[in-house]
Amino acid sequence: MDIYIVSDVGGTQIRVAAFEVSTLNRISLKKIPTQFKGQLPVERLIQLIHDIKKDFSVRAIAVAAPGFLDPDLGIVYEAPNIPGWDDYPLKKILEDEFNAPIFIGNDANLAALAEWKFGAGIGHKNLLYLTISTGIGSGAIINNQLLLGNKGLAGEFGHVTVLPDGPMCGCGKRGHIEALASGTAIMNYIHEQITAGRRTTLTKLAKITGKDISLAAQNGDEIALEAYHRAGKFLGIALANFLHMLNPSIVILGGGVSTSGELLFAPMRISLEESLISPAYLEGLTITTAQLGDDVGLKGALALLVTKLSTDQQVLAL
Amino acid sequence: MDIYIVSDVGGTQIRVAAFEVSTLNRISLKKIPTQFKGQLPVERLIQLIHDIKKDFSVRAIAVAAPGFLDPDLGIVYEAPNIPGWDDYPLKKILEDEFNAPIFIGNDANLAALAEWKFGAGIGHKNLLYLTISTGIGSGAIINNQLLLGNKGLAGEFGHVTVLPDGPMCGCGKRGHIEALASGTAIMNYIHEQITAGRRTTLTKLAKITGKDISLAAQNGDEIALEAYHRAGKFLGIALANFLHMLNPSIVILGGGVSTSGELLFAPMRISLEESLISPAYLEGLTITTAQLGDDVGLKGALALLVTKLSTDQQVLAL
Repeated sequence: MDIYIVSDVGGTQIRVAAFEVSTLNRISLKKIPTQFKGQLPVERLIQLIHDIKKDFSVRAIAVAAPGFLDPDLGIVYEAPNIPGWDDYPLKKILEDEFNAPIFIGNDANLAALAEWKFGAGIGHKNLLYLTISTGIGSGAIINNQLLLGNKGLAGEFGHVTVLPDGPMCGCGKRGHIEALASGTAIMNYIHEQITAGRRTTLTKLAKITGKDISLAAQNGDEIALEAYHRAGKFLGIALANFLHMLNPSIVILGGGVSTSGELLFAPMRISLEESLISPAYLEGLTITTAQLGDDVGLKGALALLVTKLSTDQQVLAL
Repeated sequence: MDIYIVSDVGGTQIRVAAFEVSTLNRISLKKIPTQFKGQLPVERLIQLIHDIKKDFSVRAIAVAAPGFLDPDLGIVYEAPNIPGWDDYPLKKILEDEFNAPIFIGNDANLAALAEWKFGAGIGHKNLLYLTISTGIGSGAIINNQLLLGNKGLAGEFGHVTVLPDGPMCGCGKRGHIEALASGTAIMNYIHEQITAGRRTTLTKLAKITGKDISLAAQNGDEIALEAYHRAGKFLGIALANFLHMLNPSIVILGGGVSTSGELLFAPMRISLEESLISPAYLEGLTITTAQLGDDVGLKGALALLVTKLSTDQQVLAL
């Protein structure tokens, strides 16, 4: 049986799955911690691929990896959560180990590709995907193609400045939408208000979680509501920017913070409508939540293989 | 002889030119004012096309028009400078008049296409074009295709918010990059400072022009220098946003304000470098000035025909 092997390498977990080439049915899936004493993450990845591979004939392997990477060169420039992956020739290392074509991609870009190929964005030619959790990951499909840019560094919508000199972003710069609308940004806002002496039902908790904030907001806690309102307001401004630039027909919102629903989306929609230069950008636009769950990275790596190999076959057929 | 007819319809002037299909040599060019008592702009456009057309065989006609338009439907939604062009079926009107395929496009988008096909951007797959004059017009090439989006409304990079609650933009919203870095924005800043009682060598002039401000800055006028510095700073922030999103290999800056050169570009570069999340975005990036002059709109309409018809021919050939 011919299989595709796909992997999603995250800061805490490495997942590897095998899909049958002809049906795209998943035939196996394994998950292990990324870090383990005495082993490099890449050694653990290679071992897990061998475990999954068995006696199958491997048509191709794709890996979704976090951080900055050049998908053509196959080099991971910077992956803050994976020790040692700096200017790391991931593709070459896997090519030396496995006798199969290797493809790599940024995990958020591939998540966008997954939602387009298998999820909420099927049939859309122009798609924007934002996953709002600790940070804001993102990717876009432009004219039925993954937005990659010159060196594969495109699609960093989380690092767009919406408030110069605003709060510090995870990347070290200030005022990015990630620094104003991510889970971390919402949490930071709450802590700032508590430090400033304001009262909230959250103060009594030893450690505040995202779920606590969502629950507090649902129960009318003023500061929790403010935190969502602020995040939604800036998210609306950022979305208006993205619509002006890309005019997509669908915006897909994923990630833990999105599950707060209207707490975030209601202020977002108001701010989006206020910020647009023309209501025409909303005509024919769907704004929806992501359909693929935790396996979106694996599905993205699979989508990459399906897209790459079918395109190459078309090219060969010409 | 087979010809392409192209037109650039602006608020003050209609230009129409004919190009020989096989060589792309320009064989004629005429310009008339857009508005004339007793005639509609479209009547003047049609008449000028007939004048240029003569006995030639017209392969196709393309029109670059200002404002919001849907290139597929051929409808101009809104063109503030052309009286009567609101929800205007321009393509249909021209199709009824001429026995040739009609194509229309937004003028700034087509200017981007022109610089890519015939100007500073030849050979680049991912290009960003900004023309900085009274406003900021823009367009982008993504993966060798004009960025249009779902309804052709993409590419409005001038209307990206870089300072919420900032100065009023020409579009009526606040804090867009056009409201902070266009010629109008620079002029408004100077007038605000004068009104606030600050002294500048410009005060003595009856009417201040862009050239005056540029000259004053070159002679060390503090407020004129400040005006360029502020524009450049926000332009750098906006450019960093665009690089994060699109990762182009070339940024082309056109328009009157760009001719001020280092007055604008020096602070822009500093701010761009400070705002980028990784210097990798600058690797392999060219930032340069536009090559095509006043006829960029006509060249853009020509590029549209060349691109559209060669693509269609390829499709037919399959």
